[in-house]
This record gives sequence, C-alpha cells and structure tokens, in this order.
Amino acid sequence: MLPRTYSEQTCSIARALEVVGERWTLLILRDAFLGIRRFDDFQQRLEVSRSVLTGRLAELVDAGLLRREPYQERPTRYDYLLTEKALELWPALVALGGWGAKHATPDGPPREFFHRECGTVVQAVAHCPHCDVLLTPQDAGSRPGPGYREDPSLPEELGAALGRPRPLLADARTG
Amino acid sequence: MLPRTYSEQTCSIARALEVVGERWTLLILRDAFLGIRRFDDFQQRLEVSRSVLTGRLAELVDAGLLRREPYQERPTRYDYLLTEKALELWPALVALGGWGAKHATPDGPPREFFHRECGTVVQAVAHCPHCDVLLTPQDAGSRPGPGYREDPSLPEELGAALGRPRPLLADARTG
Repeated sequence: MLPRTYSEQTCSIARALEVVGERWTLLILRDAFLGIRRFDDFQQRLEVSRSVLTGRLAELVDAGLLRREPYQERPTRYDYLLTEKALELWPALVALGGWGAKHATPDGPPREFFHRECGTVVQAVAHCPHCDVLLTPQDAGSRPGPGYREDPSLPEELGAALGRPRPLLADARTG
Repeated sequence: MLPRTYSEQTCSIARALEVVGERWTLLILRDAFLGIRRFDDFQQRLEVSRSVLTGRLAELVDAGLLRREPYQERPTRYDYLLTEKALELWPALVALGGWGAKHATPDGPPREFFHRECGTVVQAVAHCPHCDVLLTPQDAGSRPGPGYREDPSLPEELGAALGRPRPLLADARTG
C-alpha cells in the first residue's frame, strides 16, 4: 500500500505511480517486454523471492497489466502476457531506459530497444499529434484538465497560479 | 536505500529507478515542471512532512536533478531549479502522466501538458531518430547494449535468448 498522503494526490502522474510505481512492477513489465513469460524466468532474472514475485504478478494481473494463459495442465502453469493497457506503457519504459542509459549506466546500457527496420536505438520523445512535431519543455505549458479541482489548502497565490494555463517551468508564484 | 537485490539490476531502467524511483521523487520533479521552486510550495502541494521533504530535496540536489539558487539573504533561502539532466526526464513524466490520464484517473487528469503553439495535449511516443517515424512495440526489438554482461546464473536457454537481438514481446524461451 502507498502512504495515505500519496494516494490523495489526484495528479495523473501520481495515479500512474499508484499502479506501476512499486519498484519491482516496472522491472517485471520490462522483462515481459523482453519476452519473458514464465514465473521461473521472472524469478531468475529479478532475483526476488518466490513469495514476493507471486504477490507482484497477482497485483499486475488484478491491475489489468498482465493476463495469465495456461500453457500446461496437471499442474496448471501459466504464461504471463502483457495486455494492451501494459503495451501503452512502453514509451514510459523507453523514456526511463533512455535516461538511465545516458545518466546512470557508466558502461552503457546492458540492453537497448532498437528499430527493427534500421537498427537505430529507439528514443522516447514528447510529441504534438496535431502539429506532428517533437517538443521540448520550452514548447509546452501545463493547464488544469477535466479532473481539476481547486485545492483550498494551498496558499491563494499558488492555488491561482496552478488554476490557469501557464508555460512549463514558469515560477508558480509570479508566472 | 533500495533493497540489495534491486541495486544489482544493471539494466538502465533499473538504474533510472535507482535515481528517480522513490515515489516522491517524480512528484517533486513534476511540481518543479509546473513551476514550483520553493520549499514551502512543494510542502503544501505534496502534503509531506518538512523533514521528509528536506531529505528528498537534498537527494535530488546530490543526484544533480535540482540545483539550489539563493533568492534571499539572512536567513538564506533557496529556489530549487531543474537541471538539464532533470529536463531530460520530461518525456518520462509525459509518458507516465498520459498513461495515468487514460487508465487511472476516472474524472480525467487534473492537469495536463499542452503544446503552447496549438493547445493540443502533449503525448509521449517512441521515435526512431534515423527514420523520423513513431514506433509501436511491434516495430521494435531489444538487443544487448555496450554494458551487456553474460549472467551465468540464468538458465542456459534464457541467457542465450537474452544475449542476442530479438523482436520485442517474443517468447524468451523460443523466440
């Protein structure tokens, strides 16, 4: 369980982390993208106890990110396969992996995603689907979305700043 | 501190999570992207204790993701500003936020990133910089990178499968 204060965060990044923020979760999904399907293979790769892994896999099935498919009867054994909902997390894994490859693996990444057609390493980028251009933080703003609710606990000035559209990285007090 | 087994994961996604995987860390960075700079504003937004926030901010400064800049003397008070290294995490935040907006916020996202030029909601995508096309998992493969080391603890077949290029989502045993 996440701490109480954390679950009160309504932001969609916070909500995503509720589902996939447990550290092992993203590593299990990563391994599933690498083609791993079976309990024993996850266990060997992740060096996690069988009981912990059992719990994590059950959570991912409950969250609709993995589905179980029997590959053997008596005793029944299952493949764990990525759902469509999990496939949509791929850009997040590419983004974290690309950042880690640049900033956190001195010897270079042990494994990398590549474009099968040309062999180039895949990158994750922010993109405007209307203009079909790649975006930097300077090109973007943030604004209240459909789920925005005023937070009366915030100081007035800060609350007002967060209640209207603003360029990214602007000073929340004065921007 | 992350658990021992976790820190033995050499994967660049695992390494990225070493730096930004602590749950609060990405939420602090998210708020910094929304323009928040000051200790009290982070504290109000995140509803976290001052001592926890002090620790998290210090960790982010140590990790080179935030830099402190004095805005007041006697007593000295600081703005916390995103570094270039942190700005490069923006696609990961867009990816997690976009996924959370679709799958984890029933009322819609309370806040969203938009393209300032046209107002469209920003999306995070996987991209081939050589072909300049957007990619799905089906377009991609994974392969050993410069930091690849054979893992003798893995079963032979699984180790061999992970030691060569393969299409994404292929069965690690047979693909």
